[in-house]
Amino acid sequence: MNEKAIILLSGGLDSTTVCAVAKSRERDVFALTIDYNQRNVWEINAAKQVARSMEVKEHIVLPINLRLFGGSSLTDSRIDVDKNVSLENIGKDIPSSYVPARNTIFLSLALAYAETRGASEIWIGVNSLDYSGYPDCRPEYINAFARMAQLATKAGTEGRTFTIITPLLRLTKGEIIKLGLSLGVDYSITRTCYDLDDRGLACGQCEACRLRKNGFVEAGAPDPTPYRP
Amino acid sequence: MNEKAIILLSGGLDSTTVCAVAKSRERDVFALTIDYNQRNVWEINAAKQVARSMEVKEHIVLPINLRLFGGSSLTDSRIDVDKNVSLENIGKDIPSSYVPARNTIFLSLALAYAETRGASEIWIGVNSLDYSGYPDCRPEYINAFARMAQLATKAGTEGRTFTIITPLLRLTKGEIIKLGLSLGVDYSITRTCYDLDDRGLACGQCEACRLRKNGFVEAGAPDPTPYRP
Repeated sequence: MNEKAIILLSGGLDSTTVCAVAKSRERDVFALTIDYNQRNVWEINAAKQVARSMEVKEHIVLPINLRLFGGSSLTDSRIDVDKNVSLENIGKDIPSSYVPARNTIFLSLALAYAETRGASEIWIGVNSLDYSGYPDCRPEYINAFARMAQLATKAGTEGRTFTIITPLLRLTKGEIIKLGLSLGVDYSITRTCYDLDDRGLACGQCEACRLRKNGFVEAGAPDPTPYRP
Repeated sequence: MNEKAIILLSGGLDSTTVCAVAKSRERDVFALTIDYNQRNVWEINAAKQVARSMEVKEHIVLPINLRLFGGSSLTDSRIDVDKNVSLENIGKDIPSSYVPARNTIFLSLALAYAETRGASEIWIGVNSLDYSGYPDCRPEYINAFARMAQLATKAGTEGRTFTIITPLLRLTKGEIIKLGLSLGVDYSITRTCYDLDDRGLACGQCEACRLRKNGFVEAGAPDPTPYRP
């Protein structure tokens, strides 16, 4: 029997690559997409397409309205998405797209999902190199979450060891894309932009677009992202 | 200016007492109730009544459908609520009412709420004495969560110290009730039963009812809980 893996799947480039890596390592994939009422509703459609194309065992889309808390350009329409930050300045300050405690909420939900499905592994596409300076993408955070998770659950007290698997942690965006392409990922169905229009076209200017664009240049691969004119 | 406190308020006896303690210590209370689509929908009504009676600054009721994961008698109608467990056996085994990773999910959401409201304190009514054996009520778990929370947030990296405050941790149910009564809590509006009927009347037989009933006996106080005949 294959090992079961819970995968936090946003429908973006990173989590899609994580899904491909897990499949290539013969995991039975249980994908979890959190619809947190973010600006980018196209992400949810992308996640569904990715889940279908990867033939996952189960895909749960869980709605949770983080706009009730707000505090981020992704969950409060009064806060603007940062645009035109130069590539070398991305990651220096924590940007307005930081969603308070997002990865903690997502990993907690993944932990609940893992416990009910008999899975020990939670895979997440965090990245400590080409990232936006989010505190909840750092290895020390991931380790602290894993220690807490072990104490949090019935399965943990009964001897199951939960592992948070972060295959992208030390890869550049270019390396992530090369890895995905080598595994046959079709990046045209993924969405990364924080400011997609209603046709799902990317802005090309937000920090997420800039990192993604530069990744394709670095990987020496054509960028299949649909940008708006 | 008063210290701000996020309080996880279920509408039960414990979290209501926590709310009263925070008010008595002059906190500005921001109450968070998670409507996780549990059996006990009356809890949500009770939480709203408690929030009103305690004059909290803000009360957010956040829906999140944990039935998508299931795995507990509270979130899967195919699993029965344990009844007629004797008082001395409560807490020996983890019961069917255990909801996978529930406190981790709730504390994560409270952490997001705290970060957006500029609060450092998260109050939760966990209890390591008269409890049901849930792993996520133990002090070592709470400490691990606090360590993780510090690394998880922008506010944490900027120097805010998040504290998880557990005023009931080492109290018996009787002591909790005495404490609440001394602070003027009206326990008739709270709900604890895992198997309330559609009029909000308690069963008197589930583990939660048994612990609560015995608490009033121990406190030497009349039990104002509305039980069904």
